[in-house]
Amino acid sequence: MNQTVAKRILMSVTGWDPSHWVRQFKVHAPDREVVLEPDTRADPSIRYAVVWKQPPGILADLPNLEAIFSLGAGVDHIFRDNQLPDVPIVRIVADDLTMRMSEYVVWQVLDHLRQGNIYRAQQRARVWHEGEQPSARDVTVGIMGLGVLGCDAAAKLAMLGFRVAGWSRSPKAVAGVDCHHGEAGLTQMLGTSDIIVVLLPLTDETRGIINSGLLGRLKRETPLGGPVLINAGRGGLQVETDILAALESGTLMAASLDVFETEPLPEESPLWAHPRVFVTPHAAAVSDPRHLVPQMLRQMRQHEAGQPFSDVVDRKAGY
Amino acid sequence: MNQTVAKRILMSVTGWDPSHWVRQFKVHAPDREVVLEPDTRADPSIRYAVVWKQPPGILADLPNLEAIFSLGAGVDHIFRDNQLPDVPIVRIVADDLTMRMSEYVVWQVLDHLRQGNIYRAQQRARVWHEGEQPSARDVTVGIMGLGVLGCDAAAKLAMLGFRVAGWSRSPKAVAGVDCHHGEAGLTQMLGTSDIIVVLLPLTDETRGIINSGLLGRLKRETPLGGPVLINAGRGGLQVETDILAALESGTLMAASLDVFETEPLPEESPLWAHPRVFVTPHAAAVSDPRHLVPQMLRQMRQHEAGQPFSDVVDRKAGY
Repeated sequence: MNQTVAKRILMSVTGWDPSHWVRQFKVHAPDREVVLEPDTRADPSIRYAVVWKQPPGILADLPNLEAIFSLGAGVDHIFRDNQLPDVPIVRIVADDLTMRMSEYVVWQVLDHLRQGNIYRAQQRARVWHEGEQPSARDVTVGIMGLGVLGCDAAAKLAMLGFRVAGWSRSPKAVAGVDCHHGEAGLTQMLGTSDIIVVLLPLTDETRGIINSGLLGRLKRETPLGGPVLINAGRGGLQVETDILAALESGTLMAASLDVFETEPLPEESPLWAHPRVFVTPHAAAVSDPRHLVPQMLRQMRQHEAGQPFSDVVDRKAGY
Repeated sequence: MNQTVAKRILMSVTGWDPSHWVRQFKVHAPDREVVLEPDTRADPSIRYAVVWKQPPGILADLPNLEAIFSLGAGVDHIFRDNQLPDVPIVRIVADDLTMRMSEYVVWQVLDHLRQGNIYRAQQRARVWHEGEQPSARDVTVGIMGLGVLGCDAAAKLAMLGFRVAGWSRSPKAVAGVDCHHGEAGLTQMLGTSDIIVVLLPLTDETRGIINSGLLGRLKRETPLGGPVLINAGRGGLQVETDILAALESGTLMAASLDVFETEPLPEESPLWAHPRVFVTPHAAAVSDPRHLVPQMLRQMRQHEAGQPFSDVVDRKAGY
């Protein structure tokens, strides 16, 4: 390490204004300089890159880059760049982000359980009618993806009384969760869950996984009048024409989608106006710089003290 | 006790069809006869009354009545009868009812936290916009009423990350809840809470407690743009003209109301069409006979074995 070179952080973001983040770095680490672009392609002063959809190639020639930090829970946005240097990629695992994601998941699961759509329609029509109401313990929520986010959501749903099943690529054991894995396990989980929550990473293996093949394996009869899909993972996991067809055929009763194949969701998408789809603008779990910047700085200090980074991405698995 | 008289249960209900309940009694206690009316005003065969808004006086002259069971968590509907015999009144305290009430409370608190109204309006307008989003830990939920229902909701909200305050008539200590009591305590709690959840019993002391005086003591500035009221207790607790005035003046930002001064809510009520009010038809926590009938039968058997009833109402306090 060249001590005469300033220890600068490159913040490389596409699609939104990073000034909130730069401000938090200034507050928490006034000694570290944050820049939005390297001085040159081979800027020797850049030690860390903090990125969201960085322009491809921007990291390729930085000679002293030691790590890349992701500004979201997923890292698929980083791998769109095929000139990534071979340094550790560090994922965000922050209580704040996890808590926000579980807020969204519990909110949407409860809105489906408690028939929010029906009661809002009744209110518009001034109708006083109490329908059949299953309780949480009559309903199984199946969570696809048992990482930190999936496990936290599972624990909170179980605490509210739901039966919880889970599915992951490799075998896992999570207390209170009926765990499945692999292709046969997926069929089992889909066939026994009333509400499916998708919190998978986007990888070559999971791209387009929510398609007609998967939707066709969902339960036919559920206490809520049909199966419900909640995707708060990545838009690339879903095939939107298949979801719309499943809603039309009755294979799927309703969906809450926070992520889309193309974001922002194009104005002409039929998802916007579908009466049984709830659309949010990739807002399930905002990355809050007040909580995440101190976390990244802690990792940088640990690394500089000779300790390994935590939450390093497995490049082969892609997450 | 006259052993020659049949041990009959009187099920006296106004406003809905009790046949589900009678069926559950038949399933769980085929030896006990359930009748919907006594044979005579002084029918000696009636040992227990299971009631929801019983016709006043119907219990007055039953010579062998040993207990009255309430079909709801509240018992105010029983006290509307001023010819109540002096026998124990047993309240429903059932996990199923508690769990359902917490589902409703958590659902509505999250819908306000996560700005459901705004995102639903944006979807109708095909607007992709992510607003400022406080997290649960930025928000304090104040619960009025720290009985079984209030404490369960408090624990579940705390587990989701909310700060939780509580208020009760007499001093209480609940783990994880900032507890207040009495009139001064109420002012304190109202002044520090962003969302108020009302789960009080309806008594002479609490009738009309949600009025302009109380609403005027709410916080001015909250992370959600103003204070939010959720009433899942009883309609008699609220003064609806005061709630509407507070919504108009900006004292109150939004409300979720499951209960009303008059039920069903009259078609001409302005609450139906208010854009910041969510109306449900007294459906927050349905009493499910599959879970509650076995509970009542257990109490009857305990009593017949010489043990005291649990969850007996304090007639003086009114709950």
